[in-house]
Amino acid sequence: MSEIVDREIILLISKLKMIIFDFDGVFTDNSVYVDENGLESVRCSRSDGLGLRYLDSLGIKYSILSTEKNPVVTMRAKKLGISVTQGHDEKLPVLKKIAKSHNINLKQIAYVGNDINDLSCLQEVGFPIAVADAYPEVLKLAKYITLKLGGNGAVREVCELFNKFYKQ
Amino acid sequence: MSEIVDREIILLISKLKMIIFDFDGVFTDNSVYVDENGLESVRCSRSDGLGLRYLDSLGIKYSILSTEKNPVVTMRAKKLGISVTQGHDEKLPVLKKIAKSHNINLKQIAYVGNDINDLSCLQEVGFPIAVADAYPEVLKLAKYITLKLGGNGAVREVCELFNKFYKQ
Amino acid sequence: MSEIVDREIILLISKLKMIIFDFDGVFTDNSVYVDENGLESVRCSRSDGLGLRYLDSLGIKYSILSTEKNPVVTMRAKKLGISVTQGHDEKLPVLKKIAKSHNINLKQIAYVGNDINDLSCLQEVGFPIAVADAYPEVLKLAKYITLKLGGNGAVREVCELFNKFYKQ
Amino acid sequence: MSEIVDREIILLISKLKMIIFDFDGVFTDNSVYVDENGLESVRCSRSDGLGLRYLDSLGIKYSILSTEKNPVVTMRAKKLGISVTQGHDEKLPVLKKIAKSHNINLKQIAYVGNDINDLSCLQEVGFPIAVADAYPEVLKLAKYITLKLGGNGAVREVCELFNKFYKQ
Repeated sequence: MSEIVDREIILLISKLKMIIFDFDGVFTDNSVYVDENGLESVRCSRSDGLGLRYLDSLGIKYSILSTEKNPVVTMRAKKLGISVTQGHDEKLPVLKKIAKSHNINLKQIAYVGNDINDLSCLQEVGFPIAVADAYPEVLKLAKYITLKLGGNGAVREVCELFNKFYKQ
Repeated sequence: MSEIVDREIILLISKLKMIIFDFDGVFTDNSVYVDENGLESVRCSRSDGLGLRYLDSLGIKYSILSTEKNPVVTMRAKKLGISVTQGHDEKLPVLKKIAKSHNINLKQIAYVGNDINDLSCLQEVGFPIAVADAYPEVLKLAKYITLKLGGNGAVREVCELFNKFYKQ
Repeated sequence: MSEIVDREIILLISKLKMIIFDFDGVFTDNSVYVDENGLESVRCSRSDGLGLRYLDSLGIKYSILSTEKNPVVTMRAKKLGISVTQGHDEKLPVLKKIAKSHNINLKQIAYVGNDINDLSCLQEVGFPIAVADAYPEVLKLAKYITLKLGGNGAVREVCELFNKFYKQ
Repeated sequence: MSEIVDREIILLISKLKMIIFDFDGVFTDNSVYVDENGLESVRCSRSDGLGLRYLDSLGIKYSILSTEKNPVVTMRAKKLGISVTQGHDEKLPVLKKIAKSHNINLKQIAYVGNDINDLSCLQEVGFPIAVADAYPEVLKLAKYITLKLGGNGAVREVCELFNKFYKQ
């Protein structure tokens, strides 16, 4: 996590109530391992678990929103104790539903993404975050870019950012 | 994708009708994972899927041509919705057949490769492309060398190149 | 292994009787591979085996202490011939039990860790060691930081350090 | 492959009749993937296959000699069409047997290794080769150090070296 976080970011964080994470490229390094039977695997970071426990302590809600409908998302989410919504080509309508169901407005949400299918959500939320290796279009929209790469500590870094500045 | 693409490349792209991709080293990082039962896996990039959707929008045909006959190729191709021809030691005769069956001449084809078994095809097509980590012999023949490595965004980069310059 | 190891470290090493290793991030690169069935895999280094044989020759005891209760830890430990204690949220009480059962005090123990759940142990042992890619809080406590990354030779490097300086 | 290979190396190569490869760290990146059932996988390079075909053309014999007795070695060797001897703690006596059975003396053999269990063989053969990421003790003995890392083109590079300079 960058030691230098400007005042605007700290103010933003204090107003948030929820973090929505994309899965591929955020919880993973955006690669997929495919075997001869078509069985897929992804590569995640063990460090993310301790990060999410920070969010539990802070009372911040968090969830995964993934375009890809895939059992690996379900399995990783289950292990980490994080809810997941997947299999929707258009993410923004689903994000709005999630926000509504929690009685939160989009400006109270942080969204962490890496690719162009995250753009619509990133444009609408209060705190758009890009992982270090996100596509250029995503980096342009972000108010915070992680130092760590997707699947290599980016999720943990976002959690640490909240742990440090939330409610200050 | 390089921001600086010269005029010749843009003209070339506008004349093309099909892209043929090698598999290992292009859709993958050229590694293979082997388990104790001999089951093989390969590592691909999730980013390629959105790239191929660009090609669908543009109406450009695309296909995989792989020397290696392997179920992992079939499985990855199926997931991405891309046709595949595999298991031929000599690629050029197969490329010619594919071209003929689509009533396209070789000068209207882009070929993306990484190793010496791609040389014969790269020499004949209108637009030879090498991934960043291709073998030197391949790099020498290429009119475009991707900035991204094989299996790490190279396919997506080629698709973005077409998305930006095709029909301009 | 760093060629320059100061006198204090060499003195410390000569007083030790046991090395306790964290697993994830030390024996592995802190990543986890998850497949569609939820089956997990980790990535370790073949070089660690020869390192542990050094410790056998020196007569130094060693063991794995892991928060994560996971069959992959058991399987890797079995292959390497190293005992393992896992599934405890708080590591320090378990470390104390291990020490007591061997009639060793904590100052005679080296502990190798990478993340914040290792801090309590690192603070108490005689020789706290961090892998090169440990979290900043861990690096601050360490008296030795490996040059090699977790899962990429860090365990071997610690073993070589003992092989070079133990009993000198 | 380095473009600058000195005269001594070229002379050495012309006298050789066989190449013996270590497996872990040479055909692989020296990592091992372990799943919850203890099933192991290794990561190899697709580029090695075309390299070994060079050796076939030149009529040079080649084989794998591995300390680790493991089905992954057998499986990879079978796929590449290379013979394998495995499961011997001491490699030099086995190397001597192999040499004798082919009526070749050790000075007519190139040996490619990465770790300390390769030292005894590297000291005796005519052409000791180390992969770029070999352990320091191995690098010191080598007359040629590959530019490519183990599991990432090192085997191919050795084959290309022979393809370029053998019988010149």
